[in-house]
Amino acid sequence: MSKNTIDMDTIVGFAKQRGFVYPGSDIYGGLRNSWDYGPLGVQLKNNLRDAWWKHYVEKRMDMVGLDAALLMNPKVWEASGHVDNFNDPLVDCKKCKARFRADDLVEGIVPAVDGLSGDAISALIEEHDVKCPECGEYDFTDVRKFNLLFETSLGTVEGKKQDVYLRGELAQSMFVDFKHVMTSMRKKIPFGIAQVGKVFRNEITPGNFTFRTLEFDLMEFEYFIRESDWEEQFEYWLSSMQSWLVDDIGINKENVRIREQDEEERAHYSKRTVDIEYDSPFGWKELFGLAYRGDYDLKKHMEASGVDLRVEEDGEKYLPHVIEPTFGLTRLMLFVLLDAYHEEEVKGEKRVVLKLKPELAPYHVAVLPLSKKEELTKVAEPIVAELSKQFRCDYDVTQSIGKRYRRQDEIGTPFCVTVDFDSLEDNAVTIRDRDTMEQERVPIEKLSEVIEERFVG
Amino acid sequence: MSKNTIDMDTIVGFAKQRGFVYPGSDIYGGLRNSWDYGPLGVQLKNNLRDAWWKHYVEKRMDMVGLDAALLMNPKVWEASGHVDNFNDPLVDCKKCKARFRADDLVEGIVPAVDGLSGDAISALIEEHDVKCPECGEYDFTDVRKFNLLFETSLGTVEGKKQDVYLRGELAQSMFVDFKHVMTSMRKKIPFGIAQVGKVFRNEITPGNFTFRTLEFDLMEFEYFIRESDWEEQFEYWLSSMQSWLVDDIGINKENVRIREQDEEERAHYSKRTVDIEYDSPFGWKELFGLAYRGDYDLKKHMEASGVDLRVEEDGEKYLPHVIEPTFGLTRLMLFVLLDAYHEEEVKGEKRVVLKLKPELAPYHVAVLPLSKKEELTKVAEPIVAELSKQFRCDYDVTQSIGKRYRRQDEIGTPFCVTVDFDSLEDNAVTIRDRDTMEQERVPIEKLSEVIEERFVG
Repeated sequence: MSKNTIDMDTIVGFAKQRGFVYPGSDIYGGLRNSWDYGPLGVQLKNNLRDAWWKHYVEKRMDMVGLDAALLMNPKVWEASGHVDNFNDPLVDCKKCKARFRADDLVEGIVPAVDGLSGDAISALIEEHDVKCPECGEYDFTDVRKFNLLFETSLGTVEGKKQDVYLRGELAQSMFVDFKHVMTSMRKKIPFGIAQVGKVFRNEITPGNFTFRTLEFDLMEFEYFIRESDWEEQFEYWLSSMQSWLVDDIGINKENVRIREQDEEERAHYSKRTVDIEYDSPFGWKELFGLAYRGDYDLKKHMEASGVDLRVEEDGEKYLPHVIEPTFGLTRLMLFVLLDAYHEEEVKGEKRVVLKLKPELAPYHVAVLPLSKKEELTKVAEPIVAELSKQFRCDYDVTQSIGKRYRRQDEIGTPFCVTVDFDSLEDNAVTIRDRDTMEQERVPIEKLSEVIEERFVG
Repeated sequence: MSKNTIDMDTIVGFAKQRGFVYPGSDIYGGLRNSWDYGPLGVQLKNNLRDAWWKHYVEKRMDMVGLDAALLMNPKVWEASGHVDNFNDPLVDCKKCKARFRADDLVEGIVPAVDGLSGDAISALIEEHDVKCPECGEYDFTDVRKFNLLFETSLGTVEGKKQDVYLRGELAQSMFVDFKHVMTSMRKKIPFGIAQVGKVFRNEITPGNFTFRTLEFDLMEFEYFIRESDWEEQFEYWLSSMQSWLVDDIGINKENVRIREQDEEERAHYSKRTVDIEYDSPFGWKELFGLAYRGDYDLKKHMEASGVDLRVEEDGEKYLPHVIEPTFGLTRLMLFVLLDAYHEEEVKGEKRVVLKLKPELAPYHVAVLPLSKKEELTKVAEPIVAELSKQFRCDYDVTQSIGKRYRRQDEIGTPFCVTVDFDSLEDNAVTIRDRDTMEQERVPIEKLSEVIEERFVG
């Protein structure tokens, strides 16, 4: 069964039942499409995050990290244009009072809705006689703008509240701290500043499980270059993003495509923007984005702050240009789950197996004594303790061994180690492979070594 | 120079200059005591976070992780008591309009101010004739309560805004998701749910660098037990927290102490609460906390949500009790910096060295070609590429080798590898040790092995 035939209900149910993702605030009836990552979800998400950080930050001499405060001076968001322009077009149904993203209502009518003006959308709604999805009537307000930045306020001196925003993207802190980073780290162009963190958007219509949510995790860097290098750099990063996704993370190549944004869709300052899309059960959807932002952001912040953000090189002063690869971590996690989820028939029974890359699986190894009997657990427990030094381990003693194998298959554990009554005699255990289901007898003293070889192989 | 004689200005300046911590939104004049973690700061903070997660989650079979949405249904915070009781006592000076935390004004007058009522503080201010720290006058308002939860609102249906809070602590999501975690992970009492994440408090007087800030990172778990085990469990975790801090993180034992909270100070539902304090330049301050919360939280959420949160075991239904070890990650990072920072005299010159545990240092190894000449860099670059597979590396080619050694000492890099002109002949390089400053000649082909041994040793 290929991932295209999985419906979202199956994945949502699976994710909840198996400890990957639960509905947020569930005992209180939830909160608009919020989701909590359970024990296996947070481990998988952390593994994706760490693989990214190692690949793009720790292993690269031209990249450094940043972890900026989420609350910033509101002038940052004024200068960046978010206060004025970070809007979704909304319409309300006058009959039933439901509110919609206007572009969602006309999706499918035109090839791309992202760059359309409010008036253009209103015209399309009228022309195509689009009805309210809630009540079926046709009586919409005009399309209006709704700012996506969440607002809150700092309590300071009485009567003087300072309004601040929850950040709507990661990028601005890399621009605001650009000079500090460059100076303290003695970096030269080209180099990048990378960040992983949470971003908030006051979306009116979150949905499709964790695809669109009010808060989500991004991994992103701003790569600072000379203007003349932009085309070459853009190609380099586009190729890097694809190969990381396919080779390092293991997403199937045929489920990934590149989509060039056309001029209407792109931000006005961008000469080229590309979406990396995934073939999801709800259509081809943006997973990562790559944008050439020119010197737009540094210029805006230089003007607004009065601080010279130019770089001096060989007596020449200039503003670096920026290539911005954005990796949606929350979306990556969802698409990794969808991509890895397989249903197979084994001996007339359905087997669900999560074919994650072994290094990325929540657990590397599950240690399973055949029964709860103390003679077996007293052999199994030191094995777990030893393997835990090197691998993420699960230890499970209840239910039949067949059921426990199935459970480990479902959560993507590449190797199961079974301690049985023969182990008491031969000091050996069985290793079972998730994908082939083949079993091999291995001496306990060689276990770490054998598992390590399988990871490398 | 022991850490107690470092003043905070030195550390703040050092942290900025060396890329650990910058003032937040600095080009716009900052934002009330907000701080951004620069390249070395984020790496050190991540290393502390990962050491904790590995120790307390991945290596333990009785602990699982969680990463809950930051925005929760507001009923969570009503049930937990935060909406009514999560307050700081504030006073305003009627003369100059400055606002203060009332308990700060009387700190030092009584041994512990945390549990005092507003009236008790007002009485102390009057009795001891406390003056306004800003204008020197004595004309305060009564002490009033100021809620620490940041508020924001979800835009949904027109005219119906839903107010929500930024989370003021991590713990509530572990209680709200308790049943989901227990069921999906098939856990039995005792077990713990651990989380790392950002928390927001609308503090009126943040300060002391990153010690008290509006947003900060916590690492915490709720450990669910039977009531009868609480005293034994409390002792176990208290001992575990101290040994992790001293043995695993390397904080000097003499800079750590335990302080029992007395009855007035403790939350009303807690029979025992302990602060683990650090001897900072601004006094003994709370670094970690350990609280026995009883079954208070699960009971409150069970009542408010109507969902049965009891555990069934051998036919008996009961609410588990909770031990809560809280590890301030933001504070740990600050105290690790203070603890590791040393100034020494070497050959008549001041040497600053950050004596971090080698595994926790931002970089494990710095590769330094003696000069920028291509004949050296072409030897050094493959060394970096090889070492980067296993270690976090820095690569630095500019300035004199002496200056580069000093810089690596300052940022805590345990090993420097120098490629010199002899390397071209003998295929060997020099390894320099941060703490002893001793140098050893090592064949390039044995480099990874030698460095690995030093980490283990």
